Parts: sequence; C-alpha cells; structure tokens
Amino acid sequence: MQLNKEFCLGIDIGGTNTAFGLVDREGNCIREFILPTEAELGPEALLERLFKQFKDENNPDEIHRFLKGIGIGAPNGNYFNGFLDNPPNLPWGKVDLVNLVHRYYDLPVRITNDANAAALGEMRFGAAKGMKHFIEITLGTGLGSGIVVNGQIVYGHDGYAGEMGHVTVVPDGRICNCGKRGCLETYASAEGIKRTVMELLTDQVIDSRLRDISFEQLTSKKIYELALENDPIAVQAFDHTARLLGRAMADAAAYLSPQAFILFGGLVKAGDLLFKPLKKYLEENLLYIFKNKIRILPSGLPEAQAAIIGAAALIWYDLNHF
Amino acid sequence: MQLNKEFCLGIDIGGTNTAFGLVDREGNCIREFILPTEAELGPEALLERLFKQFKDENNPDEIHRFLKGIGIGAPNGNYFNGFLDNPPNLPWGKVDLVNLVHRYYDLPVRITNDANAAALGEMRFGAAKGMKHFIEITLGTGLGSGIVVNGQIVYGHDGYAGEMGHVTVVPDGRICNCGKRGCLETYASAEGIKRTVMELLTDQVIDSRLRDISFEQLTSKKIYELALENDPIAVQAFDHTARLLGRAMADAAAYLSPQAFILFGGLVKAGDLLFKPLKKYLEENLLYIFKNKIRILPSGLPEAQAAIIGAAALIWYDLNHF
Repeated sequence: MQLNKEFCLGIDIGGTNTAFGLVDREGNCIREFILPTEAELGPEALLERLFKQFKDENNPDEIHRFLKGIGIGAPNGNYFNGFLDNPPNLPWGKVDLVNLVHRYYDLPVRITNDANAAALGEMRFGAAKGMKHFIEITLGTGLGSGIVVNGQIVYGHDGYAGEMGHVTVVPDGRICNCGKRGCLETYASAEGIKRTVMELLTDQVIDSRLRDISFEQLTSKKIYELALENDPIAVQAFDHTARLLGRAMADAAAYLSPQAFILFGGLVKAGDLLFKPLKKYLEENLLYIFKNKIRILPSGLPEAQAAIIGAAALIWYDLNHF
Repeated sequence: MQLNKEFCLGIDIGGTNTAFGLVDREGNCIREFILPTEAELGPEALLERLFKQFKDENNPDEIHRFLKGIGIGAPNGNYFNGFLDNPPNLPWGKVDLVNLVHRYYDLPVRITNDANAAALGEMRFGAAKGMKHFIEITLGTGLGSGIVVNGQIVYGHDGYAGEMGHVTVVPDGRICNCGKRGCLETYASAEGIKRTVMELLTDQVIDSRLRDISFEQLTSKKIYELALENDPIAVQAFDHTARLLGRAMADAAAYLSPQAFILFGGLVKAGDLLFKPLKKYLEENLLYIFKNKIRILPSGLPEAQAAIIGAAALIWYDLNHF
C-alpha cells in the first residue's frame, strides 16, 4: 500500500516489546511493527534497530513527504523535558530520549508515559471524543492514569502527575513495587486481583477451583473465566477490586469532577463483572453533588494499537498548536 | 480617602456575616465593610442592603469611574453558571446570584466558592505568586480546597471540582455533614481536631487539661494553647490531624504533582505544631518521584481580608482575558 497522506510515527516502548506504527490524522494505524526491546542493550541500540526497520519497510520518499512527527509512550516518559526518568522496567537510568530520536529525524518529537498517551488517543479517537474532563485508567500489570482537565493532560509541575496507581487506599496495606504500602495498584490491577484471590482463599473456607492454581500460574483472565462460571472466590475477587477502585475513583472525582472514567486494559474485558460493582461503589462513595453525573466507559481504542495511536495523538495535538 | 485608581468589589458571603471591600490591582483591600448575612431573609434582601451600604459609603462618581467588576466567593458558588447551588449553610436553594447582581451593575460579575477564591488570591497576591501548580487548603470549620493546574483553577466539568474535604481517609470513619463517613474534613479541620481530642480522651487514660472542657466549649485555639504547654492529648491531636492530612496530601500529589500546598485558616496559626508533622507524614506517603519536591506554605494573604481579596482576584484574572 502506498502512503498518500500525512502520518505520525507512534512508538510504544515496553519492558519486553516495543511496537511502532504509522497513524494518520483520523487515528487509523496504517502499518504496525513490533520488535523485542532487548532493554539490556540500551536505548541507543533499540532506536537503531527500530529506525532501521522503519526505513527498510517504508519508502524513503513517502517518509520524507508525509511523516509529520514522532510520538513516544514509555514508562516514566516526561513530556516536559523529553527524558525517560528511571523507568522501573527498563534499566536505563535517566535517558534524553527525545534528543536521541532527533539524531534520526529533524521533526517534532514528543514523549509521555503510556497512560497519558492512552488518554490523548482516547480524547482524539476513542471513548472520550468531545470530552474535556476525564480520567483514563489503564488496568495492566499495574494501574496507570492519565488525567484530562480542560482538554489537556495534567502533567503537574514536573511532568509526573497522574499517578493514581499510587494513592493509598488501604493504610498499611499490601506492599507495592514502589516501596509504599496500600497503593491502589496492589488491589486494582491484573496483579492486584491475583493477590486478592490469594487473600480470599486464605480468609475463607469455601470451595473454589482457584484452590488448584498456583499464584504463578494464575491470571486475571482465569479469574474472569471462573467468575463467569460463578466460582464464589472469583466473583468476590471482582467485587473486592471494584470496591477499592470505586472508592478511589470517588476521591478522584472530588478533586477533579470529571465527566467520565475511561477504563483500558485486559481487566476491562470482564465487562459487567467489573463495571456493575464499580458503578455501585463509585456512586456510594461520591459526594452528593457528583452523584449520577459521572460515566464509566470502556476504552474506544483497539487494544493492541492503543499505545501507538495514543503516542501519535501526542503529535497531532501539538501540531495543532504549532 | 479619595479613590483614584481602578478597583474591584470583592464579596465574601458566609452563613453568619458577609464582608465586602474594594480591592485594587495590587491586591490591597482599600475599604472593607461587613454586614450580617441574615440568611433567612433571602439573597435579594442581602444584596439590597449590601449595595445600599456600598453606595452610601462611596462616591457615586468614583464608583462609576473606577469600579471594574464584582467578584463573589460563596459556598457552592459555581463559576460556570453563576449560581449558588444549595449551599449547606444558606437555606436559599439554587440562586442565580450573578444575574441578581447584574440588577445593580452592568459590569463583569463572577462567582466561585471561597476556597477557589482564596487560591486565586494566593496566586496573584499571596504565597503562590509565580506558581502555576498548587493546591490551596482552607482549614476552617470544614476543609475546602482550590486546585490550580497550569495557572488555572480546576473547576471540573460542572464547576464543582476541588472538594478535597470529602475524599475518604478512613473507610467507615467519622460521620460527615455531607452524609458520608470518613471524609478528610471530619479529621482535618477545626471541628475535626476537636473530635480527635474527644477520641483521644476516650482511648487513653493519661491526664489532660482537655478533660475539663466540654465539646461545645472546646476550640481549636484552646487545643493549640494546651499543645504549646505540652498537654499530651493536645500534642497528639495535632499529630493525628497531620497524619491524616499528610496522607491525603500525598494522594493529591500523586494525582496532580503540585509545587506546593498552601494552607489557610485558623489552624495554620499553630505553626510548627502542625507544619512539622505534616511535612513528615506528607514525605512518608509520597511516591518516590515526588519526594522532597513539594513545599507546604502558610497563606500569604491577610486572614481577615483573604476571601474579599480572592473574590476580587477572580475579576482581575478574567479582565486580563477580555
């Protein structure tokens, strides 16, 4: 397929794989590539392989004519200074990634973290189209969030705002990878719901097929499948997850009064199993002036490409302001 | 004194008294008036008396020449639609206050709640001068907050954002006036610290001069005075207040990454008794990327006039954008 219109390159850097793709102004991901991050070789080596593949598989004339910018979503990506700042799953320290990318292309390059990228993608192309106040919650291994106020990502004074995964929901609760205790993501995430299953199996004496599965083998997908079959522990695990997430969402609403929470990630596939109790607990905990005003919606982005599309949206938004 | 420069009228409507004053572009409150709100007579009667007094005590020519707008801070004041929406301490229902004021003056009229007004005053004239990301916390009978992101108040989609007093800090905790349980303001406020004293007196068997004072007679000022004399219950009460407020501030920082928290209100006079443990508990609960970055500052506005100055700042900010 020949390229015949402007596009951005969206890059999603993860601990294991890095995906990139060409995204047009309408949010269509025209071409998509994936390569192993091979984090131990460092960021320069990753970019070298990435841009080699990008050039090999695309027509240089088309790139020259139509490529408008490069957006990157990566853990601890800082929009303000263009750095990756000690991402927990990439042993790179502090990397001036935007400058590294400028070695390849003299075009606008922007970086942010994956949840902010998802929020931007959602606002431009997904479930938050037309909204100016919403919170994107990404439920993956951990919990990320991108906060939009007045149609703009809230970066805070240093670029690191939006860390909803690390608000304290249970004082002296579960140990978190960040070093604190009781963080929301130790309860509301793929890992969190696994820990909740273990806690429920410990606390209760009822039968459950979850008793046959080790922590290592357990997945949130399996918990979902068993919940659909009415396994009592699995059903309770979703309720427990929703209870803590719903309360935290009510707190977030007290700060920010959003129109909606947009939920993204594997756990969202659980549908009503998650959304129904979540709605209930959100409403229970909302201050009266916010009740029955705030929607909870699943992401409107294709899951496999969301991070690429979101990273590209970072450029499309900024281009409007150039 | 003759007026010889532009000023705004700042109005601070409270449940008991209403204060108003003339505020110049530098945030000086030139003249200040106070009248009983007499809420039971309704909002029209209040405005009638207020503007009569304003006209009686000022030269009509000067008003005509120099009055640029009217800013109002009032509980549940909604910047977006100009309404007072069922303020808890004013039995007025939903009142289109901006329109009522327009009967008197055909000038810009803006309204918001008192905490947002204080935040605006702080940013233009007080402790947050030059800041674009901070959270104003007003510690009065309850706890109010005004959130500033990118130099603008966060109103949320409906004008009601910034209700930090009603985030849940103790699940199933103390009953709040809002109908929920465990809200921050039931712990961190003048009323909250009184309740904490009662809880500590109940829990412990140590001597304290606070055992001689009824709940009704007790004031946060008295608790402060006894803490200065090392009364153990009074000292613990400040520590307890700081512990819950500090944790909530750490959560707020995870969402918003502010440069500073600015604290306003009677409790702030406790100085180090409050600020020292508050700093400790904030830092303990902050996610590592936010540690040692966020300041806790006392308000830089004169307490008696802060609400008037803040309400006037609402107009000065908007005039810059006309």
